[in-house]
Amino acid sequence: MHFTSEQRLDDRALEREFTLDEIPGILWTPVSASAPTPLILISPPPLGLRRMYPRLVGRAKYYAAEYGFAAATIELPGSGERPRGAAAEQARADLRRAMEAGGRVGDDIVDALVLPLVEKSVPEWQTALDALLSLPEVDGPVGYEGGIISIGVRLARVEPRVVAAGLFAGSLVPAAMFEEARQVTIPLHVLLQWDDEGNDRQAALDLFDAFGSKEKTLHANLGGHAGVPQYELDAGARFFARHLR
Amino acid sequence: MHFTSEQRLDDRALEREFTLDEIPGILWTPVSASAPTPLILISPPPLGLRRMYPRLVGRAKYYAAEYGFAAATIELPGSGERPRGAAAEQARADLRRAMEAGGRVGDDIVDALVLPLVEKSVPEWQTALDALLSLPEVDGPVGYEGGIISIGVRLARVEPRVVAAGLFAGSLVPAAMFEEARQVTIPLHVLLQWDDEGNDRQAALDLFDAFGSKEKTLHANLGGHAGVPQYELDAGARFFARHLR
Repeated sequence: MHFTSEQRLDDRALEREFTLDEIPGILWTPVSASAPTPLILISPPPLGLRRMYPRLVGRAKYYAAEYGFAAATIELPGSGERPRGAAAEQARADLRRAMEAGGRVGDDIVDALVLPLVEKSVPEWQTALDALLSLPEVDGPVGYEGGIISIGVRLARVEPRVVAAGLFAGSLVPAAMFEEARQVTIPLHVLLQWDDEGNDRQAALDLFDAFGSKEKTLHANLGGHAGVPQYELDAGARFFARHLR
Repeated sequence: MHFTSEQRLDDRALEREFTLDEIPGILWTPVSASAPTPLILISPPPLGLRRMYPRLVGRAKYYAAEYGFAAATIELPGSGERPRGAAAEQARADLRRAMEAGGRVGDDIVDALVLPLVEKSVPEWQTALDALLSLPEVDGPVGYEGGIISIGVRLARVEPRVVAAGLFAGSLVPAAMFEEARQVTIPLHVLLQWDDEGNDRQAALDLFDAFGSKEKTLHANLGGHAGVPQYELDAGARFFARHLR
């Protein structure tokens, strides 16, 4: 893990950019922390860290200032300035064509788009965890939030250091992930946008139903994909505070 | 409105029992309030105020101490020591028989059980509101929560002094109330127990979908009818704090 920049944000958080095996990432730690802090992994949507930066830094600053949590993110495979694979590009093109044609997107397209991303990115999050938890100022326990829900499902299933997850039911989910969801047992906080244009509401409810966790909460809000209300930031932080303290 | 008793609770709230046109009720006001306060109407389940008292007072004390809200409740028609009507008793017996027989409870039974209760209790809540808002220590705006969801739907539709409502999707809902739900426009916070034995989950989701409100949030939690997690008390209070301040 190689830090490439460092800046203080409003006396609330210290922001450090890093690279790890050529993957770019950002770590935010609370300025006022006197002891090692819990860590939230913030998985970005596949739009690139630079484009998502305003939203990511807003969350991280809130977590640092209000709850004393550290937060970190890394670029997803094929996003931002990371190399794009031919297969992933093909899958994206197939998806675009299927959505323009209307109707349901075929399982083969969803699988081709999502499953390789899950396979590739989950080990990267685990490597990032190794590096982040080796820093003296970051301790644990670890929460995970955001991004592509299938990545969260897999990470919650296989990574015991992640003890609570906040998921956004807003992307296409391969059938195989419903089976994996049954094996997830950590506390979950799931967001659903009730009128999400590109998201199948019933599939999202079925996925919530499938999770094996004894504690799971669904927060459904009126509005489209990008319309998650501002107050859900604090609701999610409170969920993490219950499980990371 | 005639106060019949008064006691201080833990230096957090003043509790006063009252009767209003022979309906028993309880008012809780924050001890430390220096100005007139917002008011939450807490509608009890139809099990009687005395039986529900521990839960009601727990909520009221929390609202008073943490948020400075006053809270009040009144006995529902046919509950507690209020006279039971023959028709309501018949409807309850029919419901019990239908549930013991298993399968779906008929629309006629649901209508006979719920609609007269809505017709009778909503004007009572409005009369209580008149009396409560005439007290110098209670001001407004007013939130409503709990109880039988159809009563909340009607009150939210017809009573402009109620500006936000927290509803519990846990009781049988007459078909006519779905139509009324479309006319509700105030912010809503709806609780759903995902594994509620006596509640049709799909009907609850359909009712949430039907509400005409621009701001509506569904909190679904794992567990049965009586298993609402403790943390939902604060989540509901924060919803009211957003709309009553």
